[in-house]
Amino acid sequence: MPSETVTKRGRPGYDQQSVLLIAVDVFNRHGYDATSMGILAENLGISKSAIYHHVPSKGDLLKLALEHALGGLEAILEQPEAFTGAADARLEFVLRQTIAVLVDRLPFVTLLLRLRGNTDIERDALERRRAFDHKVAALISAAREEGTLRQDIDPRTVTRLLFGTINSIVEWYKPGGSLSPQRLADDVITMAFDGLHASA
Amino acid sequence: MPSETVTKRGRPGYDQQSVLLIAVDVFNRHGYDATSMGILAENLGISKSAIYHHVPSKGDLLKLALEHALGGLEAILEQPEAFTGAADARLEFVLRQTIAVLVDRLPFVTLLLRLRGNTDIERDALERRRAFDHKVAALISAAREEGTLRQDIDPRTVTRLLFGTINSIVEWYKPGGSLSPQRLADDVITMAFDGLHASA
Repeated sequence: MPSETVTKRGRPGYDQQSVLLIAVDVFNRHGYDATSMGILAENLGISKSAIYHHVPSKGDLLKLALEHALGGLEAILEQPEAFTGAADARLEFVLRQTIAVLVDRLPFVTLLLRLRGNTDIERDALERRRAFDHKVAALISAAREEGTLRQDIDPRTVTRLLFGTINSIVEWYKPGGSLSPQRLADDVITMAFDGLHASA
Repeated sequence: MPSETVTKRGRPGYDQQSVLLIAVDVFNRHGYDATSMGILAENLGISKSAIYHHVPSKGDLLKLALEHALGGLEAILEQPEAFTGAADARLEFVLRQTIAVLVDRLPFVTLLLRLRGNTDIERDALERRRAFDHKVAALISAAREEGTLRQDIDPRTVTRLLFGTINSIVEWYKPGGSLSPQRLADDVITMAFDGLHASA
């Protein structure tokens, strides 16, 4: 369900998932630190006391939201295509799936990428994000050693630039527009692996 | 002068440029909206009334800071290499220079890239940034029509992904480290134009 639809409803009678969608939207607009339970209640169209019926604290909402983003990313690495076969094919699989999760769970991944690390919940999430990034970096190194990726760029730079390209998608991608998630993934993979120069 | 050096000084006797460097650092850490003249004075180690001796308002500091970022970017497009020769060479020149400005004026460009557009000063800056982006997008289209850039990716997607890659540099690049600005520009250009796959 697109978050816009839910946000506009603005009535009581939510299940936890709807509360979560609205909360993530509010966190992304105001910043997590600047969002109070009062602001959340206002956006949900319920009283400040009624919000505690749905969720014990702001931190619980953050935890649930980050779990949705990180769980999606971590599940990618557990699929057989992520650990069997040639390293460049595994890397391509992981990058495509990362883009798919990012687009499918856009507000959740946006929240994850904007974390400052001010609380334990945020620090734990950043730790898990780093662990994911390290596994992708290991795949890049493996593809390099295998000889399928170019050797003249430091693998750390490659990792930074690849994640920079992919993570920046949250800043501009509009789900439901003319660019499908599948096509977006194709374009990113083509540009990253084959480059923009026309083949001779 | 690196902003760290200036920040640590924490004494009165600043010129406007030093005040500006510290202000930009504070804006980037706390967010422009959340930064009061009181917080700025505290970071400068001077009284709240003394700060007005250096600068009339927070908005003036923002304006000066954004001018430094935008002026650097806009000057790129006025150099002969940006408008003479083959479009792909012009594009490469502009992207290399953009990376150079970004690295050289890192905190200023970071501030520009994080703007929310809540005030007229911010909106004017975002307007100038969009004008710059449009001119680069036009170069991408020209290189595509010239036949030097691949035609199978929508030029709007190419523009978004290229800027995503380059702008993300502000999130991780550490000036003075082992990766020189020149080498960084080489790596970005190689990856963007030739891709990561090893040549057969």
